[in-house]
Amino acid sequence: MFKINEHYLKLPGSYLFSTIGKKVAAYTAANPDRSIIRLGIGDVTQPLAPAIIESLHSAVDEMAHRETFHGYAPDLGYEFLRSAMAKHDYQARGCDISADEVFISDGAKCDSGNIQEIFSTENRIAVCDPVYPVYVDTNVMAGRTGTYDPDRGIWSNVIYMPCTAETDFAPELPKERPDLIYLCFPNNPTGSTITKPRLQEWVDYANREGAVIIYDAAYEAYISEEDVPHTIYECEGARACAIELRSFSKNAGFTGVRLGAVIIPKELKCGDVTLHSLWARRHGTKYNGAPYIVQRAGEAVYSEAGKAQLAEQIAYYMNNARVILEGLNNAGYSVSGGINAPYIWLKTPKNMTSWEFFDYLLEKAGVVGTPGSGFGPSGEGYFRLTAFGSYENTVAAIERIRKI
Amino acid sequence: MFKINEHYLKLPGSYLFSTIGKKVAAYTAANPDRSIIRLGIGDVTQPLAPAIIESLHSAVDEMAHRETFHGYAPDLGYEFLRSAMAKHDYQARGCDISADEVFISDGAKCDSGNIQEIFSTENRIAVCDPVYPVYVDTNVMAGRTGTYDPDRGIWSNVIYMPCTAETDFAPELPKERPDLIYLCFPNNPTGSTITKPRLQEWVDYANREGAVIIYDAAYEAYISEEDVPHTIYECEGARACAIELRSFSKNAGFTGVRLGAVIIPKELKCGDVTLHSLWARRHGTKYNGAPYIVQRAGEAVYSEAGKAQLAEQIAYYMNNARVILEGLNNAGYSVSGGINAPYIWLKTPKNMTSWEFFDYLLEKAGVVGTPGSGFGPSGEGYFRLTAFGSYENTVAAIERIRKI
Repeated sequence: MFKINEHYLKLPGSYLFSTIGKKVAAYTAANPDRSIIRLGIGDVTQPLAPAIIESLHSAVDEMAHRETFHGYAPDLGYEFLRSAMAKHDYQARGCDISADEVFISDGAKCDSGNIQEIFSTENRIAVCDPVYPVYVDTNVMAGRTGTYDPDRGIWSNVIYMPCTAETDFAPELPKERPDLIYLCFPNNPTGSTITKPRLQEWVDYANREGAVIIYDAAYEAYISEEDVPHTIYECEGARACAIELRSFSKNAGFTGVRLGAVIIPKELKCGDVTLHSLWARRHGTKYNGAPYIVQRAGEAVYSEAGKAQLAEQIAYYMNNARVILEGLNNAGYSVSGGINAPYIWLKTPKNMTSWEFFDYLLEKAGVVGTPGSGFGPSGEGYFRLTAFGSYENTVAAIERIRKI
Repeated sequence: MFKINEHYLKLPGSYLFSTIGKKVAAYTAANPDRSIIRLGIGDVTQPLAPAIIESLHSAVDEMAHRETFHGYAPDLGYEFLRSAMAKHDYQARGCDISADEVFISDGAKCDSGNIQEIFSTENRIAVCDPVYPVYVDTNVMAGRTGTYDPDRGIWSNVIYMPCTAETDFAPELPKERPDLIYLCFPNNPTGSTITKPRLQEWVDYANREGAVIIYDAAYEAYISEEDVPHTIYECEGARACAIELRSFSKNAGFTGVRLGAVIIPKELKCGDVTLHSLWARRHGTKYNGAPYIVQRAGEAVYSEAGKAQLAEQIAYYMNNARVILEGLNNAGYSVSGGINAPYIWLKTPKNMTSWEFFDYLLEKAGVVGTPGSGFGPSGEGYFRLTAFGSYENTVAAIERIRKI
């Protein structure tokens, strides 16, 4: 008789955003006349920029003719996109990343879930707490996390790095030695950032201890302050210890278009084996490339028109962030984030738990946010709002919250 | 110090089609004036059908406006596509598959590589020999296959089911008991098929022995004979033992568009746990949906116009198959396949090994095929040609082969 992967059964409940979706659907079914404003899941709402639309149409037309039709994409992705990323995201910032160190994918969620596969199941992971649930859940599925303590909401074999008001929402170097360190800056869910000198400490630590940093830079485009690094490769020595994940979801509104990339410098090795060669083997064996038309859309992100249009789009969302931040501040909430990130992180009032505040906000204000405890035990008592709504909805949501 | 997944290092050489790509690139670089005809990798060459192009353009336009913009897709895929598949691919054939048993993905390669994850690493797999390399390679990566014997080209913990001229290119029920059985009909690489009574024997065997059949139906659209099943759910009891993989790559030319689906009936269980729930959890945690525009393109495959246009496209490729089959027959080759599948499987002449014949064909005729041994030890001495070229190239390739 066949057996299942028992590790799956250890996962408590369903994936966070699926749970929220179901709760909201149930509420909507019971209250069909109630208007709901969703500032929960980090999904964009602005349409694709004109330069991207134009590029998509043009690529679709190419697919209509035998002479310009594109079948299977090259293993690592099309050279035009890998070169554009290497040039604009790295070389333009003085970082030594070449096009053949870029692996194009269909998004950072898949990449951040799949990357653990090339590592031993004996490796121990360290994560910020709270954190994007995919990092931990995919390691649970792989059997790397030990047993779950439902009372404390933690796994026995995971190193948690609390990021709370006490630590200024930044992780401190762990006391126990990890093999894989997941970092995400600007941070999801807290919206906090890290300065370049602080990130350099992490790179030095990883090189000293023989750990790999998996650096999720999905929110890089929202950085507004000078001393915040846009990529981990701004730090010296990062080529020897860091993998970077990039996404087009938030900088270009590709949540429904699907495009991302993994950067693996060829210096990153375990003995003689480059992690680049392992990921290349995974890519070649288990993946068949992002759609040609989507890779062309990605290229348009780096065009002059694309860059200008997307800067406007980000400014639009960051104006929402300002509205939320100021509105909640004025309403007496304790808030952070929202300066270099589209996320606002708030302390729940009156010692409510995160899920109590979720229900309270949904019922009293018709506003959907994300319970901080869904991101880890140190997220308990916190709540995430996103700036990805429309301006009108954001203003209305804050008005409703202020009234309750 | 972090460790890598050591199973990756057991994999001999690179992924088959990457190796072929590199060999052809080297040959082309050395012989820039030589014209090469590629009948190797199973990549389509005809442009997307007009109904699909129209649907893509229209979906792109939707993404350009806030009112019709689509962000993250639903976990399982859009209902419009899941319903279309359930209706046209299953219910229309009298098979009891509902829309919520369909999981939309970005292609059958990813699905056939990822599906093993929900099973225990202790499970033992059985594969046809020769076989699509992804089934075995992804189980190697997961540590399920034991050790590799380079002389015999086999893994110690894999059950091989030889499909050679002696077995009429069909597998026989294995003597040892497997937990997971990979079947692919119409077959890649041999182009062979299975009748419904024979497939029923496999379903009965799996139900009796407590095994799961992973049924790859990627080439279903090429079936021309009456008694060949289009889906495993035509067999009684398949809902309790079979997962089916579907692809849009070959029936609609989506190799560069990327769309597929996994079908998991809710009756398929290990104890109380449905495999449906495990795959749903994986989908929700590690995947973020196929692009909206691509799912709309998939919907167009089932429109009246789409169906008519794609029937023509398949007839075009199957005419190529006829050209290859007849041409090689006339040239004295021993050939099979090509009737219900776009693949033609031939015995190499003069006892050449598969790779010797690959080099011979490339050098003497400038024709690229796929060495049978790349698909498994029983593929040694065989060679695969595909019908996916243009008619002109196919005729020219056969002419060149006949001359040498």
